[in-house]
Amino acid sequence: MELLDCLKKYDIILGSQSPRRKALMEGAGIPFRVEARPTEEVFPEGLSPVEVVKHLCRQKAREFSGELKNPLAVVITADTIVVHRGRIINKPVDEADAIAMLTALSGSTHEVYTGVCICRGSEVHYLYDRSAVHFRHLTEEEICHYVEHYAPYDKAGAYGIQEWIGYVGINGIEGSYHNVMGLPVHKVYEALLEMLCS
Amino acid sequence: MELLDCLKKYDIILGSQSPRRKALMEGAGIPFRVEARPTEEVFPEGLSPVEVVKHLCRQKAREFSGELKNPLAVVITADTIVVHRGRIINKPVDEADAIAMLTALSGSTHEVYTGVCICRGSEVHYLYDRSAVHFRHLTEEEICHYVEHYAPYDKAGAYGIQEWIGYVGINGIEGSYHNVMGLPVHKVYEALLEMLCS
Repeated sequence: MELLDCLKKYDIILGSQSPRRKALMEGAGIPFRVEARPTEEVFPEGLSPVEVVKHLCRQKAREFSGELKNPLAVVITADTIVVHRGRIINKPVDEADAIAMLTALSGSTHEVYTGVCICRGSEVHYLYDRSAVHFRHLTEEEICHYVEHYAPYDKAGAYGIQEWIGYVGINGIEGSYHNVMGLPVHKVYEALLEMLCS
Repeated sequence: MELLDCLKKYDIILGSQSPRRKALMEGAGIPFRVEARPTEEVFPEGLSPVEVVKHLCRQKAREFSGELKNPLAVVITADTIVVHRGRIINKPVDEADAIAMLTALSGSTHEVYTGVCICRGSEVHYLYDRSAVHFRHLTEEEICHYVEHYAPYDKAGAYGIQEWIGYVGINGIEGSYHNVMGLPVHKVYEALLEMLCS
């Protein structure tokens, strides 16, 4: 892809184990490799959603200080949270928790925030995006079917918009679909071009 | 999928050659087969966008009158149009047309309408959906790159939201992402359950 050739001389590292983020980076044609370093996702009380995702993507980025000694290394980390009625919803811990989360989200609107840190040397470029998601009323049968047949446990809010529940249960969104999947890749693409190609 | 077992006794026919619509029906877990019958897409002057997509999905459905003699046959046809500044934009006829369409859509908002006809016997259930799509400013290089490397010729407005341009060029949408792809599959799912399973 000659358009993005200027990115090829860099070692762009996606610091995430999410297969959705990997697919989004591939879809945007960005050259990169994955190097996931799981960190404990803890944050201080009282932060706003934007501050939480910023805190967590910075925390994840800190694991890559070794790589960032290479001036051609660029590390991208991200964190996605779901906010419903003012409360932050994490990943479900078990089946009952996943069912309770989806029952709460059913028939209402929630917000998805993703914070992204793009790091090069000691420089950190931070960006975030916010989308609203409207779930129609889901039946108990639909919720149980989804939790039983899919893998909601690695996903904030216990669902993946790109899975069955996203096809049949979501009336619409406001904002970026890719942000709901876990990465506002249009913003990452623009930031990389500005940082590395201009 | 036991949840949708009640649909299995019907012969659900998707009357469309669009690979996106096929993927959306599969994603929703609806059992179906494809039987595409290309029709000429012409409509009277002076119709509103909602009337145009209704007219065209009905026109497409008429090709299946033979199949509809079978009381277990259910035919689904659909038509998608792009509306920009009050004008309906069709599929591009050549490269220059595709470039001109994307140049017009760049940096602005357009609307995508999809009309769907679900036919059984002499009964026609009609539904539609509308989404707004916000393109950021696309560079000439990005537009030419897309037109050269992808296949915009079978798509209203000369783009596919699920392709590269959708990853890097769209800031956000209002409404259903799947509707922009060509089928508001959540509404088709609900209509089929109501028509055939209740």
